[in-house]
Amino acid sequence: MKKKLTVFLMFAWLVSFSGLFAQGNYTLVIHGGAGNVDRERVPEDREEAFNAKLNEALDAGEAILEAGGSSLEAVEAAVRIMEDSPKFNAGKGAVFTHEGGNELDASIMCGQQMTAGAIAGVTNIRNPISTARKVMDLSPHVLLTARGAEAFAMEHGADIVDPSYFFDEYRYDQLQEQLRRMDETGYIDSADMMGTVGAVALDKNGNLAAATSTGGMTAKRYNRVGDSPIIGAGTYAENSSCAVSSTGHGEYFIKYAVAYDVSAQMRYKGVELEEATNSIIHGTLRDLGVNGGLIAVDKDGNVSMPFNTSGMFRGYTRSDGERVVRIFGDD
Amino acid sequence: MKKKLTVFLMFAWLVSFSGLFAQGNYTLVIHGGAGNVDRERVPEDREEAFNAKLNEALDAGEAILEAGGSSLEAVEAAVRIMEDSPKFNAGKGAVFTHEGGNELDASIMCGQQMTAGAIAGVTNIRNPISTARKVMDLSPHVLLTARGAEAFAMEHGADIVDPSYFFDEYRYDQLQEQLRRMDETGYIDSADMMGTVGAVALDKNGNLAAATSTGGMTAKRYNRVGDSPIIGAGTYAENSSCAVSSTGHGEYFIKYAVAYDVSAQMRYKGVELEEATNSIIHGTLRDLGVNGGLIAVDKDGNVSMPFNTSGMFRGYTRSDGERVVRIFGDD
Repeated sequence: MKKKLTVFLMFAWLVSFSGLFAQGNYTLVIHGGAGNVDRERVPEDREEAFNAKLNEALDAGEAILEAGGSSLEAVEAAVRIMEDSPKFNAGKGAVFTHEGGNELDASIMCGQQMTAGAIAGVTNIRNPISTARKVMDLSPHVLLTARGAEAFAMEHGADIVDPSYFFDEYRYDQLQEQLRRMDETGYIDSADMMGTVGAVALDKNGNLAAATSTGGMTAKRYNRVGDSPIIGAGTYAENSSCAVSSTGHGEYFIKYAVAYDVSAQMRYKGVELEEATNSIIHGTLRDLGVNGGLIAVDKDGNVSMPFNTSGMFRGYTRSDGERVVRIFGDD
Repeated sequence: MKKKLTVFLMFAWLVSFSGLFAQGNYTLVIHGGAGNVDRERVPEDREEAFNAKLNEALDAGEAILEAGGSSLEAVEAAVRIMEDSPKFNAGKGAVFTHEGGNELDASIMCGQQMTAGAIAGVTNIRNPISTARKVMDLSPHVLLTARGAEAFAMEHGADIVDPSYFFDEYRYDQLQEQLRRMDETGYIDSADMMGTVGAVALDKNGNLAAATSTGGMTAKRYNRVGDSPIIGAGTYAENSSCAVSSTGHGEYFIKYAVAYDVSAQMRYKGVELEEATNSIIHGTLRDLGVNGGLIAVDKDGNVSMPFNTSGMFRGYTRSDGERVVRIFGDD
């Protein structure tokens, strides 16, 4: 009798740890950046191409979640798709620095284990999000930077590319335009600083994860680092509350610890996800005139995708079959 | 009559903006790191030298606060004194990286203006806290890193030193010892990772500020960045709640957004400063076996200096004449 109980308990234990037998619902939310995105600037054929790429990212993550995989795997997979597209300001499509190079940042967090990894200022890693994941899994550190992060990536088999891989005509023109405006006005215009990508997910086991990847701000200088690789600013995940990925004027997202703040409001004030995200994006930040948005999912699978710009590339998919992909504010 | 009123209003306005006529109380709190600090490891003559240096830092900041200067000026001045001393793991006394170099991080935040500046991974700046201040005051960015931060510092007249300035026999021996232990155990021992310095202050005008500076973790690799230059993790200041500077196992202070969390607890849960800081240091972090501490001051001048290690170099001084300087846990 005792043996049977032991076998049963071992079986139950296996089931609880195995994604294959996971029974809960799943949700995946992604963004490709908030910013000056209105219908005049995005012709219909480009709109379709954006929608197709967002759907491809959702497909990649959903396949993992549907099979009982972890939210961590799902957000990494979704972000990789967007990193490989020149359409978004991350990976392949990263914007140019003041000096005409590309410096990429990314971070990832697991809300179940409260582990996190991030890299900043790398120039030759094709998928920064996957190296951030390796920092989380294989190093005692959370944030590695610059040449050190690249050395770590190389030692752990990352896909290393020549920096010329990140050259993109459109982005280069953006830099020239930004430099011209800076000459005129003396400061960086925040209109072009969007395009960061991110994903948050709840898996069938009830675990939350978040991931963010970016090329930063066009014409950034002095090895500037924004909010995307900062746990608590660009990315946060905590199983009892929510997972968040931000996009916008990074300096303000750092100063207001935006991603962490959503979780803190839920846990300390007891508010719902939507109230927490709105109070930041449509409250604090809007009042300051700060542009941006975020995506978030809570432990019950509720989705929030607020932004105070004219548009945000965004979408979500759920185990109940609901899928939404949107670009403009009036969608 | 109207003219007299105008003159009076202008005078009142001037008074309200002038530190000289500021009427409130002030408080300055500093730390020189939490860690394995017990009486056996710190002989009496070294204890006296530490106390003298902490008092010197308090003197520098207090002179500014007493004269009606800003909390921002005060925390920068106090941190500079500790950066210039080889006693602490910041500036002159920065620990060594795995490769035998020194990489310094610092951040500063103004709770009145909600502005912040930070630098990470610099190798030739004598007082990183003052460059962090310049990033805050003179750049559109919050966080600059590595060679870019150094170029920015140089352009803005920072005190640049040869990297050999940071060589210190004692710190170098610490690195050798750490490397030996890493060979044996395969991981970095957290016992030696302490020594970060920081300061928080409330000035007579009721403005809060926080500053943190560090050499990071002995034998850190891959351009690792810890919590000290991360706004929300190592440093936070917000006028309606508190100012915080952290010290400890940085990776965890990032993942739990420690400095921001104190402010969030006060604002969202309505708890007092001491309850907020204790719930992190003696709650969340202690439960995880994570070593560290923090200093904090709230908008009413209340001071909190919790740590879960055997000691923390710490002290505070107040406009009512109270001054405390302590090292050990049983002080």
